[in-house]
Amino acid sequence: MDVAALNVLGYEDFVKIFGNVVEKCPSITAVVWSKRPFANLSALEAAFYEFIDALPDSGKEGILRCHPDLAGRDLQSGTLTTESREEQTRAGLNALSSAEASLMAQLNQDYKKRFDFPFVICAKMNDKATILEQLLERVGNDRAEERERGIEEVKKICHLRLQALMLHKL
Amino acid sequence: MDVAALNVLGYEDFVKIFGNVVEKCPSITAVVWSKRPFANLSALEAAFYEFIDALPDSGKEGILRCHPDLAGRDLQSGTLTTESREEQTRAGLNALSSAEASLMAQLNQDYKKRFDFPFVICAKMNDKATILEQLLERVGNDRAEERERGIEEVKKICHLRLQALMLHKL
Repeated sequence: MDVAALNVLGYEDFVKIFGNVVEKCPSITAVVWSKRPFANLSALEAAFYEFIDALPDSGKEGILRCHPDLAGRDLQSGTLTTESREEQTRAGLNALSSAEASLMAQLNQDYKKRFDFPFVICAKMNDKATILEQLLERVGNDRAEERERGIEEVKKICHLRLQALMLHKL
Repeated sequence: MDVAALNVLGYEDFVKIFGNVVEKCPSITAVVWSKRPFANLSALEAAFYEFIDALPDSGKEGILRCHPDLAGRDLQSGTLTTESREEQTRAGLNALSSAEASLMAQLNQDYKKRFDFPFVICAKMNDKATILEQLLERVGNDRAEERERGIEEVKKICHLRLQALMLHKL
């Protein structure tokens, strides 16, 4: 890991490497680039969080809506981003029993119907049991709570993706 | 074209259809979805413009950085989005002489060096001659002028992409 190397990247290379640390939001990475140089990984993360936190509620919900369902159509059809596929697989979501898969699909559906955005959770910090538990619990929250909760999870995902990229790419 | 059909789409279908009307920014489309129902195409466009206009300068520059160079590496290597490829091809950027290609590459480079974001222009409203003229002229502006000018072009691109999708997809 070498923050010095990261600090001299042009925006094109920076976005190529870090463009999906917020799922399908390379424009956020492109904003963060302009905040370089970064003293360390925490400063880089903070730049992502700062931009996200300053967005209006509609912008935060827009980010949530760019996340795929867990164990959803994109996992089945192979159209997940590389990062999401790896995360969902690690959480065992590619190996659900048919009963678990039906339950997950139903709960995802209920959640989206209630909130107009998908259930977002950092899959790498969970497994299928805790994901199902969280889905059942969080669907009872109100929309503002879930917007903030989803964004917290986006930040955890961002943290782990950045960490992995810093370890492997630089 | 049928705005009524668009107004009943869930966010997943909406983003699938309109996700690239702002280049590589599906999260903006996902924000716009929450502003439905739309009275007409103009109202839909206005929702995109409103969100973009409310972004801080860093957010606007982030959008610009998600745009590919004109006649750049992505065109040559086939990695443009479908929309960009079609637009650049229509403007004749896939058929530059070697002298034109060198000039375009040099001017793009100069522009990015000066502004830290790429030259953005609505290719469909231009051809290679006017694009080169504009590059030569706009590189002389200051950064704030070019940020706003680039965003104006993003809106023209958005307008034409929306129009095309409303004609063909619905």
